[in-house]
Amino acid sequence: MPSRLSIIVVEKDRDRALQIVDSLNASGDYDIAVIAEESGLARRIAQRNPDVVLIDITNPSRDSLEELALASGPTERPVAMFVDRSDDALTKAAIEAGVSAYVVDGMRADRIKPILDAAITRFHMFHRMRTELHATKQALEERKTLDRAKGILMKARGLSEDQAYALLRKTAMDQGKKMIDVAQSLVTAAGLLS
Amino acid sequence: MPSRLSIIVVEKDRDRALQIVDSLNASGDYDIAVIAEESGLARRIAQRNPDVVLIDITNPSRDSLEELALASGPTERPVAMFVDRSDDALTKAAIEAGVSAYVVDGMRADRIKPILDAAITRFHMFHRMRTELHATKQALEERKTLDRAKGILMKARGLSEDQAYALLRKTAMDQGKKMIDVAQSLVTAAGLLS
Repeated sequence: MPSRLSIIVVEKDRDRALQIVDSLNASGDYDIAVIAEESGLARRIAQRNPDVVLIDITNPSRDSLEELALASGPTERPVAMFVDRSDDALTKAAIEAGVSAYVVDGMRADRIKPILDAAITRFHMFHRMRTELHATKQALEERKTLDRAKGILMKARGLSEDQAYALLRKTAMDQGKKMIDVAQSLVTAAGLLS
Repeated sequence: MPSRLSIIVVEKDRDRALQIVDSLNASGDYDIAVIAEESGLARRIAQRNPDVVLIDITNPSRDSLEELALASGPTERPVAMFVDRSDDALTKAAIEAGVSAYVVDGMRADRIKPILDAAITRFHMFHRMRTELHATKQALEERKTLDRAKGILMKARGLSEDQAYALLRKTAMDQGKKMIDVAQSLVTAAGLLS
């Protein structure tokens, strides 16, 4: 993480935006940019790729809340969302959209720092877990594909499992490909030809 | 979830405990119990198995914070932790210990309900993901074990892969066991005998 955290503040109201920037400046040394315009928000945020996004919404509707949450890229970076009021459904929608902190009526200069810290830590925890889940699912899928490819070779060419494995590996090496890609091609081709 | 949420409040200070109970009662219809004694906390909480644990700590040290967070079973149920002050390290410790909500200087009657809602939603999200990760890891491990067991049988008895698989399945059926358990026994035995 860079020494100076870059934060994008998403806030339509100019007065509140100034107030939030003041609160942030009072609580730490941040590189702050404000976006007031909601159109093209996802693209603008992706371009700047900030360390954190802070969204402030007054009188949120479920649609606007979800739209802002998703546009801010909550799986790419920590997103802290501040709302002036909430209910069960709004709270649930915000958290399930992936915001790392959801704060109801809690915008106060001295509380911003711990909220950002919490959002960042929570984001990294979730991110680690999602990465691990993705890697494990992929390992399982690759194993299934390799097994299918071995099975196809064993049957089609009367090979033993070891021989089928060796043939896949040799083909991958000869073609400068990964074994899993050769296996996947074989499974796809066998599906087309059968 | 039962219609009436059961909440255990962990609070040493009697006055603050009363204040929290009042705040909770003002914000919803809860079944509330207070635990003031920290010794044996994990056991007491496990016995009552509440829907939510609310921990309030004044002037937290890192050790006491982590101890309370873990004793409250943050992987078993949503835990909301309120502290009067925090810093980077404390915030990080609390979130990584698994608390579903971490609120700094934010105990106010009208903010408790959305904080509990957020903690519950976040807990369920995390729980779903952890369950999925666990199931995927287990599927991968079982697949590896079955492959190893098949390989052992193929080599030791000169079987084809299909025959090895059929033998494992037949043995499991004959013994009223799961295939994965038969495969695991075989892998263990082969390890002992080699």
